[in-house]
Amino acid sequence: MINELIKKIKTTGAPVVVGLDPMLDYIPTHIKEKAFKECGETLEGAAKAVWDYNVCLIDAIADIVPAVKPQIAMYEQFGIPGLVAYNETCKYAKENGLVVIADIKRGDIGTTSAAYATGHLGKTKIGSSFVNAFNEDFATINPYLGSDGIIPFIDVCKEEKKGLFILVKTSNKSSGEFQDRLIDGKPLYELVGEQVAKWGELHMGDDYSYVGAVVGATYPEMGAKLRKIMPKSFILVPGYGAQGGKGKDLVSFFNEDGLGAIVNSSRGIIAAYKQEKYANFGEEGFADAARAAALDMIEDLKIVRK
Amino acid sequence: MINELIKKIKTTGAPVVVGLDPMLDYIPTHIKEKAFKECGETLEGAAKAVWDYNVCLIDAIADIVPAVKPQIAMYEQFGIPGLVAYNETCKYAKENGLVVIADIKRGDIGTTSAAYATGHLGKTKIGSSFVNAFNEDFATINPYLGSDGIIPFIDVCKEEKKGLFILVKTSNKSSGEFQDRLIDGKPLYELVGEQVAKWGELHMGDDYSYVGAVVGATYPEMGAKLRKIMPKSFILVPGYGAQGGKGKDLVSFFNEDGLGAIVNSSRGIIAAYKQEKYANFGEEGFADAARAAALDMIEDLKIVRK
Repeated sequence: MINELIKKIKTTGAPVVVGLDPMLDYIPTHIKEKAFKECGETLEGAAKAVWDYNVCLIDAIADIVPAVKPQIAMYEQFGIPGLVAYNETCKYAKENGLVVIADIKRGDIGTTSAAYATGHLGKTKIGSSFVNAFNEDFATINPYLGSDGIIPFIDVCKEEKKGLFILVKTSNKSSGEFQDRLIDGKPLYELVGEQVAKWGELHMGDDYSYVGAVVGATYPEMGAKLRKIMPKSFILVPGYGAQGGKGKDLVSFFNEDGLGAIVNSSRGIIAAYKQEKYANFGEEGFADAARAAALDMIEDLKIVRK
Repeated sequence: MINELIKKIKTTGAPVVVGLDPMLDYIPTHIKEKAFKECGETLEGAAKAVWDYNVCLIDAIADIVPAVKPQIAMYEQFGIPGLVAYNETCKYAKENGLVVIADIKRGDIGTTSAAYATGHLGKTKIGSSFVNAFNEDFATINPYLGSDGIIPFIDVCKEEKKGLFILVKTSNKSSGEFQDRLIDGKPLYELVGEQVAKWGELHMGDDYSYVGAVVGATYPEMGAKLRKIMPKSFILVPGYGAQGGKGKDLVSFFNEDGLGAIVNSSRGIIAAYKQEKYANFGEEGFADAARAAALDMIEDLKIVRK
């Protein structure tokens, strides 16, 4: 899957992933009104609005970007109906040729990590059958519990040729509270990065590992350091645009080959119609606005392709 | 809810939580056969087996323990039907007077953390309505992302009078890989513990905070240290029995008042019928075996009640 992701990045010329984080505030009024009319202001109504919104967004961007990243929390908040919409969104994105990076930030130990891994990336054994529960291509994982938490994910990824992005340095302001603390003179995120590089050796693709890292766009200097520490790990970069950080600031996340990172934008694309720049599309034109914003982001990121 | 949990611990004399982690291997053959006959070896079949198993377990232990802790990964591995069984299990446990500690180990930032928090512990706003998605009493949370990830959970907990258990020192062997690393001479888990104590001040119950911590039974000396660092935080203690650690080893997790911790056992109770000690109950008697094992655990933990 890492090979496929890289191939798609090369074909589209877009090291870009669109974050499908459908907060109700982002969803245009006409979609919500229709859904609430049909299902009421219920979990089902919210899930229908999310699904209708996502279909339009996927249709609008599937031919220009390689991947989407649904943030499962935004679906989980709508309970079971929300998670049905999540699962359908992942399926629909895959049917439309997109790589699906599940932003689930799961992390546990042993058989529990294995359960998350088979549930999201592999096949769950039921009696003598093996069944897909969810079926995403990559998942984001939290490293706080150490190797006992990560290895079961890697085992499943090896069987399924799927991949991981492990949280190393997150994009938020308080990420330094623990991640930046110095251990033998080195910040914790560097130690985690070193471990990601080691875990990455367990499951290599052609040029890059199936085990990648999450490093926030908001910390380009740390990105440069981590780029060197994990030369074979793909970096998933959140925090572009809305959280700050533009193409020229992100060069350090990429390798000399112009690869090695994929930059996420969520609100900046899926709610582009709310920005002054794309206001001419109107609320009804939200999907075209999203496409225009994605194209602008691809243009902005040309600088990293050397 | 922390006051209610403490009240229930006092009434039952049992600082015990039963982990509802229904791996298919734990579920007796007759339950699985019935479920698979009805629904096939499908996600639905697995979810039905899980639900039938859980109902019997809850019926068997609801009057002797204060709380259950469903591990959501064990349900998520069965996709949507599994999560329906999770939700129904939480509801059924609450209807039977049990406090529900959701072992979800979620953790993200800002609006995303808020989405997890409202989804699991609060009410999700849909249009002008507020709806429960899931509705557990406590949730376990990962601290790696710092305060930006924790505060949105605390905000929801304050509104709903619900609580958190934040991962501090986990029970697994490799937990030291990051958690034990020294920062200014102190291990990371102590810094996280200090932060838990600070976060705890934001949302106090009568005697204890609504913000607790997870500290593994496998590390009793660290438990003693953390007990002092977070005197007002309840400690959720996994790793009893199956992972090692018995009553006498756990005294250090408790305060002088005989309170301050709740000890989890999953396999040791719900799959007790597989142990030689409870083999006389037979597979059909799994629920009675679970009750007997829970009673033995309560007896074993009498030592902490001073």
